[in-house]
Amino acid sequence: MSIEKLHYFFEPRSVAVIGASTRVDSPGYVIFKNLLDNKRAGILKAEVYGVNIKGGEVLGEKLFRSVLEVPDDIDHAIIAIPAKFVPEAMEECGRKGIKVVTIISSGFSEVGEVELENKVRKIGKNYGMRIIGPNGLGVYDPYTGIDTLFIPPKKIIDGKETVNLARPPKGFIAFLTQSGALGGALLDYLWGEELGVSKFVSWGNKIDVDEVDMLEYLKGDPNTRVVAIYMEALKAGGRELIRKGREFTLRKPIVVLKGGTTEAGARATQSHTASLAGNYRIYVGAFRQMGAIVAESVLELMDMCKALALQPPAHGKNVGIVSNGGGPGIIVADQLERRGLRVPKLSDDTLRELKQAVKDGTIPSIATFANPIDISGTASDDAYVKATEIVLNDKNIDLLIVLALHHPPTLTGRLPEKLLSVMKDSKKPVLIMDIGLGELSRYVRRIFDKNNIPSYTLPIRVASGAKALVEYGEYLARQGVINDYLESWEPPRRLS
Amino acid sequence: MSIEKLHYFFEPRSVAVIGASTRVDSPGYVIFKNLLDNKRAGILKAEVYGVNIKGGEVLGEKLFRSVLEVPDDIDHAIIAIPAKFVPEAMEECGRKGIKVVTIISSGFSEVGEVELENKVRKIGKNYGMRIIGPNGLGVYDPYTGIDTLFIPPKKIIDGKETVNLARPPKGFIAFLTQSGALGGALLDYLWGEELGVSKFVSWGNKIDVDEVDMLEYLKGDPNTRVVAIYMEALKAGGRELIRKGREFTLRKPIVVLKGGTTEAGARATQSHTASLAGNYRIYVGAFRQMGAIVAESVLELMDMCKALALQPPAHGKNVGIVSNGGGPGIIVADQLERRGLRVPKLSDDTLRELKQAVKDGTIPSIATFANPIDISGTASDDAYVKATEIVLNDKNIDLLIVLALHHPPTLTGRLPEKLLSVMKDSKKPVLIMDIGLGELSRYVRRIFDKNNIPSYTLPIRVASGAKALVEYGEYLARQGVINDYLESWEPPRRLS
Repeated sequence: MSIEKLHYFFEPRSVAVIGASTRVDSPGYVIFKNLLDNKRAGILKAEVYGVNIKGGEVLGEKLFRSVLEVPDDIDHAIIAIPAKFVPEAMEECGRKGIKVVTIISSGFSEVGEVELENKVRKIGKNYGMRIIGPNGLGVYDPYTGIDTLFIPPKKIIDGKETVNLARPPKGFIAFLTQSGALGGALLDYLWGEELGVSKFVSWGNKIDVDEVDMLEYLKGDPNTRVVAIYMEALKAGGRELIRKGREFTLRKPIVVLKGGTTEAGARATQSHTASLAGNYRIYVGAFRQMGAIVAESVLELMDMCKALALQPPAHGKNVGIVSNGGGPGIIVADQLERRGLRVPKLSDDTLRELKQAVKDGTIPSIATFANPIDISGTASDDAYVKATEIVLNDKNIDLLIVLALHHPPTLTGRLPEKLLSVMKDSKKPVLIMDIGLGELSRYVRRIFDKNNIPSYTLPIRVASGAKALVEYGEYLARQGVINDYLESWEPPRRLS
Repeated sequence: MSIEKLHYFFEPRSVAVIGASTRVDSPGYVIFKNLLDNKRAGILKAEVYGVNIKGGEVLGEKLFRSVLEVPDDIDHAIIAIPAKFVPEAMEECGRKGIKVVTIISSGFSEVGEVELENKVRKIGKNYGMRIIGPNGLGVYDPYTGIDTLFIPPKKIIDGKETVNLARPPKGFIAFLTQSGALGGALLDYLWGEELGVSKFVSWGNKIDVDEVDMLEYLKGDPNTRVVAIYMEALKAGGRELIRKGREFTLRKPIVVLKGGTTEAGARATQSHTASLAGNYRIYVGAFRQMGAIVAESVLELMDMCKALALQPPAHGKNVGIVSNGGGPGIIVADQLERRGLRVPKLSDDTLRELKQAVKDGTIPSIATFANPIDISGTASDDAYVKATEIVLNDKNIDLLIVLALHHPPTLTGRLPEKLLSVMKDSKKPVLIMDIGLGELSRYVRRIFDKNNIPSYTLPIRVASGAKALVEYGEYLARQGVINDYLESWEPPRRLS
């Protein structure tokens, strides 16, 4: 199907919540309140209308008995009423000329109500309305303020308002998820990681808009630099997805996490087949064919997307590691090599330059240069900058990881800025790891992140980031487009 | 060697810092200040003396020119002066009758000064003084306030005091690390995870006190319920460690992370051997022989220790999963089965009881009971409690994971307490996962943690915890002691 209407989901001129209600834990109330709050805060530009068959008023807004009564055109309707009433509401949406509908309601094919679901799909088709859902959380777009998540942002705990589901800020990752529960919870996690999203879509039963449509749409979305997909089963259209995916990944990377890869997992997805292991292998084969990177865990999905959103793909799999601590460097090297990356010896030129820096007194004499390079816990800011600059220029190195372990007394709070001065114009990808969760750890990582150098807290995490950049680079090389890609690659613009 | 003196490292009656200095970024200053601060805060009971060959005064305290001048017995000396002066200081410590010495100074065998190191070791032997170090961070004990970490707790950033290395609170994990850089950074991480330690030892070149001694000592330490070890190479005494480890793991679990398991990693440990993969296999074999659990990453090391500190080992590998979201349950099941655990179908009795609870209206009718059990996003607190209670009693289930995903509007802030009421007397291990980093996520997890039910943020993390409990149970079963162990197992006391 054409994607010409998809933009109405994310940037409608007007939106109606069908099922806006006074019951504060009802999905309709939560969604209506989200939108009104965003409207009042100036984030959402669209007009917001509440619809409830009983009429009345909620949150100071008059409720219309039907969308047909709303005295304005409506681009996007959000339906949050019991399943059996959805067909009628859809008919009215169609007659109103509404462009797109997000159906939050559950009670369709997931509980055996296949006919009801088919009826809804058919009404959408008849009127040319695109549908996201039913039985999902719908859409969230921090750029436009569209937020159909019926999970309340706050709850009352011990009489006190407590943040229930923090929404992540603006970012570059589009997150498409088959599981609403996972999607919602991950938004809360991304918020804590200060990792933003461009768009979030939880499509539940996915009766219309699917991965194929969204990839086509996101190809042209300036806010999306990488797409994260959580998928349990492909209902149909695998071939089309591979075709569309191949087109997409020539421009932007995709990372996929597949749920139900083991016997118990698949049993729960209700997609049990005779040969499960084989089934997963088929999926992985399909993902690889479309150029997508396969994540092995939720954490890896996030860590890979963070690297791909901010840094260019790597031209090869040789990683340089600059550290001021032996152990952390060793563990990062272990994790990289386990993932098939290489941590090679440095070139003779690089070793010569490093030794010269030792002679000059910039790098401590107890430093070791085996790669991981350990400039030791007595290294100064300047030693870090010098070592980073030298190793970044090594022709044997495709990607650099700097372990900016800020703890020793010889390092100042200015270290991140000084490192940025030699990293920011690098054509090679650069990643940061700084273990720790304290105040200064967060401060250090935030500076790097804000300057598009992805930072990580743990060895496995930075290794996942590196793996993604290497795998994507290898894919582009196999397609013969890596040089063109790198030439036209631009760092993301800074977000306010 | 005997362990009779080891307690002086952690609970001395008096401590001297040799190298206490006015230079605020010098190790001696930082350590002296840590100890004085802890003394003044009433945490440290020991007397604290500063020693500096130049005399003078720092932080309002008179400095003695030699330990011999201190008008008091000293149990524990901390040496933080240039390496070449260490032998003389050690001689004075010996003559003073000091029991144990932590040597922070670097500049010994790690830079080729093997003779100097041997000299220091010999002086310790002559006087019967035990040594931790040199070239490490030394020891940290949150129970007694001993803190020889020369990493400043705070740094000045933009004119503002900023926490540089937050120390974790009192807990049950003893952490022994060959890498000071990793150790220090991990303390900062553990602080953020609100995961406490019983003792921390960073022994650098490890010329005297080693794993064998510490295991012997920690066997009787009431604060230590599990030991985490980061190890790059065993210098000698592997056989002795296996023997001591076997004794130890019959009483308390050990988790080991080995650094340098790949070519590049091992190159950096300077323990390069002809057959590396074989080398790691030998290590893993030795760890298994001693009953230790092998962690594959820093994150897994922490997650395994958290589970082992708070919960009993599992009697088998069958895991039950109760969730209110399909996706998260599926992913946890995938991660468990990848680690060799099983997520079996529930017994007929259990299914009957669950179906009865649906009939009674406690559990929503759209719930599915395939294990993972998905009580759906519309489940109430009571549905959660009921499902948890029923599955916990299933005779096919050895360990229960509850995905207490708190986000849906139908769940209240009281859910954790209600779940605890059916979990707290369980003989089977129980773990919690709640994805998210927001305010309510942290609140929920903190309640479980404080009540000894370990909580995790991500599927791989809770799967690591489960794996540790299953592996330790299997080991105890092979040794024929699992029933005795479980009978005498006690939950940890609550910490203030």
